[in-house]
Formats: sequence, structure tokens, C-alpha cells
Amino acid sequence: MDKTPTKIDIEFAQRKIAPFIHRTPILTSSSIDKMFSSKLFFKCENFQKAGAFKMRGATNALLSLSKDELKNGVATHSSGNHAGALALAANTLSVQSYIVMPNNAPSIKVEAVKSYGGNITFCKPTLADREKTLDEIVKKTSAVFIHPYDDYHIITGQATCAKEIYEEFQKLDYLIVPVGGGGLLSGSILSTKYFSASTKVIGAEPMGADDAFRSIRDNTIYPSVNPKTIADGLLTSLSKKTFGIIKNGVEKIITVKEETIKTAMYLIWERMKILIEPSSATVLAVVIENPELFLNKRLGLILSGGNISPVTKGK
Amino acid sequence: MDKTPTKIDIEFAQRKIAPFIHRTPILTSSSIDKMFSSKLFFKCENFQKAGAFKMRGATNALLSLSKDELKNGVATHSSGNHAGALALAANTLSVQSYIVMPNNAPSIKVEAVKSYGGNITFCKPTLADREKTLDEIVKKTSAVFIHPYDDYHIITGQATCAKEIYEEFQKLDYLIVPVGGGGLLSGSILSTKYFSASTKVIGAEPMGADDAFRSIRDNTIYPSVNPKTIADGLLTSLSKKTFGIIKNGVEKIITVKEETIKTAMYLIWERMKILIEPSSATVLAVVIENPELFLNKRLGLILSGGNISPVTKGK
Repeated sequence: MDKTPTKIDIEFAQRKIAPFIHRTPILTSSSIDKMFSSKLFFKCENFQKAGAFKMRGATNALLSLSKDELKNGVATHSSGNHAGALALAANTLSVQSYIVMPNNAPSIKVEAVKSYGGNITFCKPTLADREKTLDEIVKKTSAVFIHPYDDYHIITGQATCAKEIYEEFQKLDYLIVPVGGGGLLSGSILSTKYFSASTKVIGAEPMGADDAFRSIRDNTIYPSVNPKTIADGLLTSLSKKTFGIIKNGVEKIITVKEETIKTAMYLIWERMKILIEPSSATVLAVVIENPELFLNKRLGLILSGGNISPVTKGK
Repeated sequence: MDKTPTKIDIEFAQRKIAPFIHRTPILTSSSIDKMFSSKLFFKCENFQKAGAFKMRGATNALLSLSKDELKNGVATHSSGNHAGALALAANTLSVQSYIVMPNNAPSIKVEAVKSYGGNITFCKPTLADREKTLDEIVKKTSAVFIHPYDDYHIITGQATCAKEIYEEFQKLDYLIVPVGGGGLLSGSILSTKYFSASTKVIGAEPMGADDAFRSIRDNTIYPSVNPKTIADGLLTSLSKKTFGIIKNGVEKIITVKEETIKTAMYLIWERMKILIEPSSATVLAVVIENPELFLNKRLGLILSGGNISPVTKGK
């Protein structure tokens, strides 16, 4: 797949992946609505299989390969949700998966990949060693490398999330989406263009990892250098494919403070009684820092994942 | 209301309170099912208004009073979910509420009562001072005292929770319900008798607060003396009305270790991505400690509430 996904590509992907993913609920909170005098619709990808939207893209990427291409399995390097999603999607389709993980990856993510049957190879926590180790694995196994976001099949899969929102709620003024590598944001932009053209799409990015904000502003892809944020799903930089879609379709990218991300996360935990990870909280943080922009508006917000292990106070 | 609630009482209560409460979802988890080789249906009262099932009973109690009886408001003493639920139910029905809270009540619960418009009077954290302070408030305001569970209107309201489960899922082998004062358990027993007679009802109680277990075993109401458990919703003892219903209808009360309550709570947080408080976790702790009893069975489990404020690790 070498060109921007079309409306038909997304519709087809939605039907293909439906049996293998959850159609996640869209929740509302009257107390949060009251707080901002707007109507917020939260798309709960924290309830997605493997705990994040990544399952959509990974499943679509695998289903887009032929049986012959899949016979040696799939491979990727990731310390995060793409690792778990690819391992689970592969397991579901009885395909081998080879996951290169840095030796400092959180144990909860390592355990998740293991429990989904992924074959883990640990490497040093540098991009160079991750890529080198992956190259060796691919050479040895002939597995197909699945990039976490610089891949139109992945982007098409992620696009199904926003499509589901528009099937249930029309006339949204804004859709707010976290941006890391840009797979979810670019997919959301495409679905908005095809299924809800009057909705404006906003990217939510931590101030401490604002490479996407700067990349769009200056019309060039900046690498993500030494990002500092608790939003551990948003550390990566845009790629050629995601940058191309985002620069043409995003209304703007809004950066948010670390403190606001935490406030937003706790607010959602306490008011909605659902667990989301910090990356998800950036979308509500955008509303907290810019309430005047969203006054009396209808907002879709994608809660991208829920892979976090909180503890009780003082424990 | 001076006799055990009937089937018609519960059906009527359900229709009366419906506009003022949430019909909460029933969630399942394939990974937890696999873990125990049984089918678990979790009734999510953590998503209930005010964050707990208590909203059902409080609303029903208020709707059972005449306009004239309500004109001076309602009162109770509570440091927990009944306080918040009564304040919110009263607020919804434009009735004044007077809540006596011990001066060591968690600030999150105090804030909740305030945000629902309850009039708080603080007292010393002893039962004697709580009752004395409440008496004074009632004398001064002529408000109606609403007991958290020794009240058939409250029990009838709590019964609507199990009724909703049986409307969606039939042929459950067991229904597992946390037991503190016994309002939810006795209501669940009545709904089971009327709407799913073949289902056995099990009470889940922390070992460190096992007064209900001992009360049923010895056929006498023991007070809850110095209970020690993180399940802060289950510290109270049975009352005359709840004891009467429970002793005739419960299959058994099963006590669980503190360690298992924590394990169960974290398991639900991590696998289901929903926030529940420790009291709710007792029901899954029963399954964890007695897997052989529930092998290949269909279980309903009531997650009674979600009022807890966890933190991220190391924060």
C-alpha cells in the first residue's frame, strides 16, 4: 500500500478487523461537561484489546499480508503498546511474532508481550541497537517488519477509531487526538475528511515532547530528541507518511504542560472511574488549558490507551 | 414500610428511581474468565451516580417520603458512600440534606458531599458522638433520619441492582455480593428469590471484619468491633432488618484475606481498566481463594463502588 488510504480502504479495514477487535464504548460525564460548559464524548480505547488503539492498526496490517507473507511471522521493535498489540494480533491469527524490546522496558509491558505469545529479544535501549537487533532477527527468521506507524495499513487501521465515533455522534465541532508518531492522528484526520468533514481535528502533545508541534509549524520533520514527559506513548517523532497527512489535515497541534496532563488523568480516573494512561490524558489537558476555545462545543476525545498500573495511596 | 419488601415493591422501586440513577453496564473479561475457567459477569456500580450502589437506596428512600415529610430535609451520619449518595439524591430532588461526618473522614468524601450541596456537621469519630450530633441536628431541623441500611426502602432500592443483572443474564449459578451492613446483600437476596430463584447468593466479607460471617454462623448479630481492612465500605455490622433477610436467604458468607482483596483489586484495574474501591474487590477475592467452587460456573459479581483515588507509582 503506497498511497494515502481512501474512504473505501478505511471502510474495508473496518469490516476486516471487526471480528478481532472490540468496538469500544463512547462515555460521557455530566460533571466534566459542567466543568467546561461543553459536551465531551470520550472514545475509550483503553478498553481495546491489549489495552490500546494499537490493536486496530496491528490487526489491519496483518490481515493485509498474504498467507505466504505471514508464514515466517512478523517482527517489530517497541517498548510500548505496539509491541503488545502486534503480539496479540499475531497470536489471534496464529502467526509467530518477534518483538525486540529495550532491556529497560517496563516489566508490565514485557509480561503482556509474553502472555500474548510474542518471542522477545532484548537489546540495549538505544535506537541504533533496536534497529540492529531487529535487522538480525528479520534476517534469521524472514519475518515481515511491521512499523508502528510509518505504514499505510497501520494508519488505515487506526482510522477506524474515529470512524466509529462519527457513526455514533454527528456534528462534532472538534476531535482531539494524542500525537506521538502520528499514526492515530493521521488516521483520525482521514476518517474526519471522509466521514465528518465539518469537524476540526486537533493534535494533543506534551510540551516536553513537542516535536510534532514544531514539525508542523516549520514544515519539516524534527526528530524527537530527549523527550521528557510522563506520556510514555508519545515519545516518538513523526514519519514521512504521518507527517504528510497531518500537515494537510490538522487544524492545529496544541501542547500541554506535564502538570495539566496529571490533573486531567486524575480527573478522568476519579470522575469516570476508568483507568487511562498519561498519553490519553493529553486530550482533556488541551481542554483544561484552553476552555474558551471549546465553550459550548461538541468534542470528541480519543482516550488512546489504559496500560498503567496505579497504586493505592501510601501503599 | 415495616415488612420485608415484596416482588412488587422492588419492581415499583425500579420504575420510580430509574430517571434518577444510571442503569450500570455489566462487563466481562475474557482474560479473567480464562484464569478461573468460569464465566464472570461484573455489575459495575462503580459507574453509578455518586460512585456507588448507595444511590439506589437513597433515591428510593427519598421518593418514598411525602412532600410534607421532605419539607424539612433528610439527615444521616456517615463517613462513606451513603453520605455522598444521600446528599446527591436530596440535591436532585431539591431537598435539603444534613450529613454528620466524623472529623477524620477522608477529604475526598467530604468534598463529594459538599459538591452535592449537603450541609455537613463534623463530630468526633465515635459512634456515640455521631449519634448524639445527629440527634441534635434532627431536633433542630426536623429533618427525617435515613439509616444507611436498617430501612426497608433502602433495601428495596439496593435490590434493583441484582434485578438488572437478572434482566440481562439468566441462569447464573452464583451471585457474589460484598457485605458490610448488609443492605446490598439483603436486597440482592430478595431479587434473587423473586427473579432468579435457582441462583445461590454468596456474601463476600474481609477476614478482618468478619462480623457478618460470625453472626450468620451463630444466629446472633455481633457488633463490628475494631475491624481491620482496606475495604472501608464494609466496616459496619448487620442490623435487625438485614440480618433477618440474610440468615434466611444467603447460601454462605465467605471471608477473604486482605492480600487477596488487594490482588483482586489490582487485577480488575489492570485487566478491565476500571477503577473499583477495595470493598468491590472482595467479590473477586472470593473466586481467587475458592476457584474449585466456581469451576465452569456462571457468576454474577457486584462491584459495589469506585470511590478511591489511586496514584501513579512513585508519585
